[in-house]
Amino acid sequence: MGPKIYILRYGHRPQRDKRITSHVALVARSFGAHGFILADVKDDSIERTIKKVSSRWGGSIDFIQGVSSYSFVKEWKRRGGEIIHLTMYGLHIDYVIDLIRRSQKDKLVIVGAEKVPRFFYRIADFNVAVGHQPHSEVAALAVFLDKYFMGRELYLSPSNPTIRIAPSVKGKRVIIYGD
Amino acid sequence: MGPKIYILRYGHRPQRDKRITSHVALVARSFGAHGFILADVKDDSIERTIKKVSSRWGGSIDFIQGVSSYSFVKEWKRRGGEIIHLTMYGLHIDYVIDLIRRSQKDKLVIVGAEKVPRFFYRIADFNVAVGHQPHSEVAALAVFLDKYFMGRELYLSPSNPTIRIAPSVKGKRVIIYGD
Repeated sequence: MGPKIYILRYGHRPQRDKRITSHVALVARSFGAHGFILADVKDDSIERTIKKVSSRWGGSIDFIQGVSSYSFVKEWKRRGGEIIHLTMYGLHIDYVIDLIRRSQKDKLVIVGAEKVPRFFYRIADFNVAVGHQPHSEVAALAVFLDKYFMGRELYLSPSNPTIRIAPSVKGKRVIIYGD
Repeated sequence: MGPKIYILRYGHRPQRDKRITSHVALVARSFGAHGFILADVKDDSIERTIKKVSSRWGGSIDFIQGVSSYSFVKEWKRRGGEIIHLTMYGLHIDYVIDLIRRSQKDKLVIVGAEKVPRFFYRIADFNVAVGHQPHSEVAALAVFLDKYFMGRELYLSPSNPTIRIAPSVKGKRVIIYGD
């Protein structure tokens, strides 16, 4: 049991960000995060997406929504957890990823949509840049988790799936689990 | 000059996929691809996004839209290029990435939205899975390019930017280039 890793989505706008936030949540789940927090807002469609995928493909991820991002982050820190904020303005991931991996503190990774208030830059133990070019919070989270877990996350086999893929050279092969 | 790497987006639906496809294009640009093809459809908003980012942050990426995906892929192959299709049904990336990196053929990476026809599975030299769990084509492309370029893409410094980031522990620091 290493440290827990939770992903907090900041600034989700239900109209505009539904699909991007879904992708962030699916990356969180499939790349081995233990929890996903949709902060400051509720959007049941995100919860449905992640629950549906988990019931089919296995595993479980804590899903929390509607809590205050500021309070959640402060409480995480008060309990001894670490805050990591993904931002292209931060330090290059290669400079900090080993430090982050070695600390045994539980980790809260903040993934913002659009503008993130200074509060998060200040309270973060690490502001981490997955490159210093603008691209995508989905990409940033995926590359961060891949480097954090050193590629092992791509071998996860979530518990109790009803379907699983058998790798294939040219087609699609799935294994369906019956009752 | 290594091989060229182009990203082809298949199945873009302008209403539904605008933001996801923008993220795919921005990842293509910032992770060092030479070209981006929006196949079978035109969507000037994607072109505007990528051109705007390039004019500000530097570099240039070929942008092609509206060409037939089938013809483009066949022509790419006919000219001796290699086809890579990202799909969770394929072979695990770790098994094929060294082979792909070592071949000196130009590479066309197909990134689908939703269902991709069998044609692409068949014509692909490599069907590559960034894990066998459902997540995001944005994440899949980013992790693929990161492993292909072995992390070097996160140090790219595109030519002629008007703005650049200076990495920072807690805040935002940018360098603006005057005339």
